[in-house]
Amino acid sequence: MESRRRGRKATTRAKKQPALKPEAIMRLGLGFWGAKTLLSAIELGLFTELAKGALEADTLRDRLSLHPRAVRDFLDALVSLGMLQRKGTRYANTPEANLFLDRNKPSYAGGILEMCNARPYKFWGSLTEGLRTGMPQNEAKEGGNFFTALYADPLKLEGFLKAMTGLSCGAALAIAKQFPWKQYKTFVDVGCAQGGVPVQVALAHPHLTGEGMDLPVVQPIFDAYVREHGLEKRIQFHQADFFTASLPHADVIIMGHILHDWDMEEKRMLLKKAFDALPKGGALIIHESLIDDDRKVNSMGLLMSLNMLIETPGGFDYTGADCRGWMKETGFRKSYIEPLAGPDSMVVGIK
Amino acid sequence: MESRRRGRKATTRAKKQPALKPEAIMRLGLGFWGAKTLLSAIELGLFTELAKGALEADTLRDRLSLHPRAVRDFLDALVSLGMLQRKGTRYANTPEANLFLDRNKPSYAGGILEMCNARPYKFWGSLTEGLRTGMPQNEAKEGGNFFTALYADPLKLEGFLKAMTGLSCGAALAIAKQFPWKQYKTFVDVGCAQGGVPVQVALAHPHLTGEGMDLPVVQPIFDAYVREHGLEKRIQFHQADFFTASLPHADVIIMGHILHDWDMEEKRMLLKKAFDALPKGGALIIHESLIDDDRKVNSMGLLMSLNMLIETPGGFDYTGADCRGWMKETGFRKSYIEPLAGPDSMVVGIK
Repeated sequence: MESRRRGRKATTRAKKQPALKPEAIMRLGLGFWGAKTLLSAIELGLFTELAKGALEADTLRDRLSLHPRAVRDFLDALVSLGMLQRKGTRYANTPEANLFLDRNKPSYAGGILEMCNARPYKFWGSLTEGLRTGMPQNEAKEGGNFFTALYADPLKLEGFLKAMTGLSCGAALAIAKQFPWKQYKTFVDVGCAQGGVPVQVALAHPHLTGEGMDLPVVQPIFDAYVREHGLEKRIQFHQADFFTASLPHADVIIMGHILHDWDMEEKRMLLKKAFDALPKGGALIIHESLIDDDRKVNSMGLLMSLNMLIETPGGFDYTGADCRGWMKETGFRKSYIEPLAGPDSMVVGIK
Repeated sequence: MESRRRGRKATTRAKKQPALKPEAIMRLGLGFWGAKTLLSAIELGLFTELAKGALEADTLRDRLSLHPRAVRDFLDALVSLGMLQRKGTRYANTPEANLFLDRNKPSYAGGILEMCNARPYKFWGSLTEGLRTGMPQNEAKEGGNFFTALYADPLKLEGFLKAMTGLSCGAALAIAKQFPWKQYKTFVDVGCAQGGVPVQVALAHPHLTGEGMDLPVVQPIFDAYVREHGLEKRIQFHQADFFTASLPHADVIIMGHILHDWDMEEKRMLLKKAFDALPKGGALIIHESLIDDDRKVNSMGLLMSLNMLIETPGGFDYTGADCRGWMKETGFRKSYIEPLAGPDSMVVGIK
């Protein structure tokens, strides 16, 4: 009897509604703990050190000049977060950390996170002020300008451009693979940074020649990267400011993580310049962490747009549908959206 | 043929190893974006406003005095993070947000996150310095003392104590339910704060009487909370500093989220005082976000320990096995670990 009654009671309760729990809220709200732990580990060169081989906590402490107090908590927290493995008493990189967080590998993707650690982590601390004022919360608040400061310091700039390569790496490979390059002969990557996308595209398609367009200060960094890949005969640098110059003519124009930096008027201006530089049948490839059309799923795109609030006077991210709409208004004959890698997608517009 | 060959190739590739992706690393490293978005939403009272009913973005913008620029990105980011729902063009709380993030409900658990937003988010920005020096990274760096400042300001203190109640709420209910209270008549909660645990235990077990022990400044806040629950005849406040005073005698002594604040010597001192205050057969209940014994799984416990690095001169979190070991050394006859709610567990020691 007792067990039957209990059974019935449990069923009634289950039908009513499941007990609500605060854990998902707490996990999200305390998410800065885990984030900052990883960012500090990258800053300290932990994964670069462990790429040489597994180490004891004490050895790591010496190599990274850490205080004994929190070494084990730090390392074990990274184990629990899936960034390290511990076998016996030795710590080792996970395969992902070993590939993407070792500074000595070309696959290093930690640059963007190094940058987050050095700058935006702090600036996001005044997100509330940003939401209230609509104003950027970075160096601009003290009259500074991030891009000016960055482009004035070659070492900082190289770090930033490498970070961008890391960020675009998956997308670059996917664009090289997915886009119908056989139909085209020339391309320009507008705001090319170090040249991550031009290099991958040219490596995959020997019939293509292309240009990377960016400010003059970027050229040495771009040229070195292209030479490293033996592509200097097929990829040139084109010095220009896309605000003052028109874009060089090419069959395909690429803009990756560029449009979101700018306000609506600037976005339209860039799309118009791309349209003008393409031949009939030419293609414009826009790639970003696009927000899903229903604006409900792709957190990365939506949070990236809040990052544009923090970092720029008028930038914002957008959906694939938004972008297709702007392309149509600009005169593009047709367009389509295609997912690339991770949170990145591309919008292709055909003139 | 073609499809067979493809099939074989795919199999070979799958056997080799799956392609590694940087997404999990990026998601973790950028985790401060989502965290800070939620913290700002709580700070702005978004969930409290929506608890009154679903609203359009424009109405929310007016009510929360937000700038138009990023309102939709902010709200849609919260939708994508599972903290809001959007039906048509109106935004509504999820059931969890409605229960735990509405300031007007007794179930409000946002206090701890309000505190994180106001203080530790910034202090965690110097985690690397903390790891290098072993020194706290909060007000102490400028010669301040968080607890002194907190206890000097009744309004701040009330906020903090409420935050602690929110944090311990699930654990309080579980302790009231799981511990064999029928065997005991009296209890003391040491470092009781607002009294979240004493109140839940007394509500569930009418035969019990108990005390909450904390510094004198806590008394008015404790007394008010106990009166709200009509328990003033069974729960008293006991003014004392656990560093200078012995603990009051009781059948059961409870310490929740207390031991981790202190260094090893202080932890042992507190355990000894608890042992001395218990009768033979009496029980000590220690509850925290215990680290799992293998130190590989419970991120919350491990990151909480790094939070102790940021916030205290010598505090650290620990495993259930650690705590059982200290209890044994103190003289407790036996002990056991039991999971409570979410990341919280209790260690029970029997004298």
